[in-house]
Amino acid sequence: MELIQLGHGSGGRLMHDLIREHFAPVLNIEQLNDSAVLAHGPAGRIAITTDSYVVSPLFFPGGDIGRLAVCGTVNDLSVSGALPLYMTAGFIIEEGFSMKDLKTVLSSMRAASDEAGVRIVAGDTKVVDRGKADGLFINTAGFGVLGDGVDLSPLQVRPGDRVVLSGSIGNHGVAVMAERNGISFDPPLLSDVAPLNGLTKRMLGAAKTLRMMRDPTRGGLATTLKEIAVDSGFGIMVQEAAVMVRPGVRGACELLGLDPLYIANEGILVAVVGPGDAAQLVAEMRETAAGADSAVIGEVVEVPGRTVLLKTAVGGIRIVDMLSGDQLPRIC
Amino acid sequence: MELIQLGHGSGGRLMHDLIREHFAPVLNIEQLNDSAVLAHGPAGRIAITTDSYVVSPLFFPGGDIGRLAVCGTVNDLSVSGALPLYMTAGFIIEEGFSMKDLKTVLSSMRAASDEAGVRIVAGDTKVVDRGKADGLFINTAGFGVLGDGVDLSPLQVRPGDRVVLSGSIGNHGVAVMAERNGISFDPPLLSDVAPLNGLTKRMLGAAKTLRMMRDPTRGGLATTLKEIAVDSGFGIMVQEAAVMVRPGVRGACELLGLDPLYIANEGILVAVVGPGDAAQLVAEMRETAAGADSAVIGEVVEVPGRTVLLKTAVGGIRIVDMLSGDQLPRIC
Repeated sequence: MELIQLGHGSGGRLMHDLIREHFAPVLNIEQLNDSAVLAHGPAGRIAITTDSYVVSPLFFPGGDIGRLAVCGTVNDLSVSGALPLYMTAGFIIEEGFSMKDLKTVLSSMRAASDEAGVRIVAGDTKVVDRGKADGLFINTAGFGVLGDGVDLSPLQVRPGDRVVLSGSIGNHGVAVMAERNGISFDPPLLSDVAPLNGLTKRMLGAAKTLRMMRDPTRGGLATTLKEIAVDSGFGIMVQEAAVMVRPGVRGACELLGLDPLYIANEGILVAVVGPGDAAQLVAEMRETAAGADSAVIGEVVEVPGRTVLLKTAVGGIRIVDMLSGDQLPRIC
Repeated sequence: MELIQLGHGSGGRLMHDLIREHFAPVLNIEQLNDSAVLAHGPAGRIAITTDSYVVSPLFFPGGDIGRLAVCGTVNDLSVSGALPLYMTAGFIIEEGFSMKDLKTVLSSMRAASDEAGVRIVAGDTKVVDRGKADGLFINTAGFGVLGDGVDLSPLQVRPGDRVVLSGSIGNHGVAVMAERNGISFDPPLLSDVAPLNGLTKRMLGAAKTLRMMRDPTRGGLATTLKEIAVDSGFGIMVQEAAVMVRPGVRGACELLGLDPLYIANEGILVAVVGPGDAAQLVAEMRETAAGADSAVIGEVVEVPGRTVLLKTAVGGIRIVDMLSGDQLPRIC
């Protein structure tokens, strides 16, 4: 059977076969009961998160919706300071979707979860009639544990703290946007979609004054910085020259009329750290693959209105606000 | 703003406003970070589950997609023997969806989670362009803990065990199907959608030989019984006369050409229990609102082929198999 049928979501035999033949073995789901039952280690604090993925197109340079769905949830746990352990995956499939594409996505989820060292323990499949969805939507929820003493929060942020960015911006959004518009670049622009739990684990060990982390996905770096300002109660002064944008991404942004500051990323994070620990933290981050381009990009400052200010390369200062409206719909 | 716009899913200001004004207060989500961080009690075993909800129509007699999304996940945890504690909620919304309907669904989720005593701790919102979804899809994931010694599994099932059903069948599927086809009944046929954790908690305390529980949702009672037979390795002999079908549901099924055995339920469960404990278990179940119509409906038997046999009212015997194909798409 090459195409998904409505009966694949019926709860009956077709669905059982689909799950037993394709989902369970590829995702390594061992229990096909109503819930996965798992031994849990020591008592302590847990972290729980969820995200739905509706990216269009489903396949793009550097990744696909499956890799995105795993990495996005792993990263939400990671930037909370948690060690990601388990994930769930819910699939909403449009009738007529290609079984081949579904298998590719499942393999991609498996590879990403292996890469991150996270187990997919529960799943669900629904099929909706043709024209009532767009190929495939995936929801993932994630579960992790927090180490003793880990207490990351915007409320820990103080003036003078340094703002650190782990890599160049705009790669994911531009890769998806280019694919959507049938534009190809040479060399190709790849999404940065990647699990960040290796990086965050190292960061937690590297800096006692690590205040908080956040991953600048939808809304881009600008929106994340503004969130940090609003939630912490302080302003942020960013040095534009310190924010790395790859030449290809910069060119594509000019072509497509986009501002890289507002473009979604799926493999970088922003951290705030005490000034004394910033250099050491960046040095450690740079030793990881995900953090090789880490740099201090700004400083927490006392300004009215919890404002984010961008000091431009030519010396001007621009106020950076959240994304308003929809620069790039369905980017993740 | 009366209708959902693409910008509500952008990650920027519109989405922040939507979440802060509507989602967070109604669902009682306190933390707006990447993950919810929660204190967790003693070490032990945990249960994790997920389900997506694509029911059409979104509102039906006796419930709506919001109540369904909470109860479905609470029930998956409950029948695993777990105490449900936390839930996540992911929303995929079609551009142009009514804000009023969204608020109604959110209120309904809040009411159901209060009823079940479960906290919604994390959420996500995505908006897709008009025509690329069908109003609203919701994914929920659930997290619970298992008490010491609770070990429910089809592998515990033995010949001679009794099969118990907690209420009448077909109510949810018929209510949704009637609403979808513009048929109304007098008195109205209501979905049975309800949280079962109160009932399962009582059952866990009532019978030491409780082998397993499962809720017969998609695919109906027939599919669930067949699953139990397949997973346990034994057959099941069911007394048709003991399976309660309300007269209105029976009439509607005749009208719509449906078999109540294959219709989805959202507020009942099937349990397998040792023969010595069956009467006591049913008596205790009947003292709860969700289990008032509980009854023994059959017995685990040694027959070849892990077969489910139905002894009909007129004395014949029929083989019951899983639902094949799609009797009722998008019922949950």
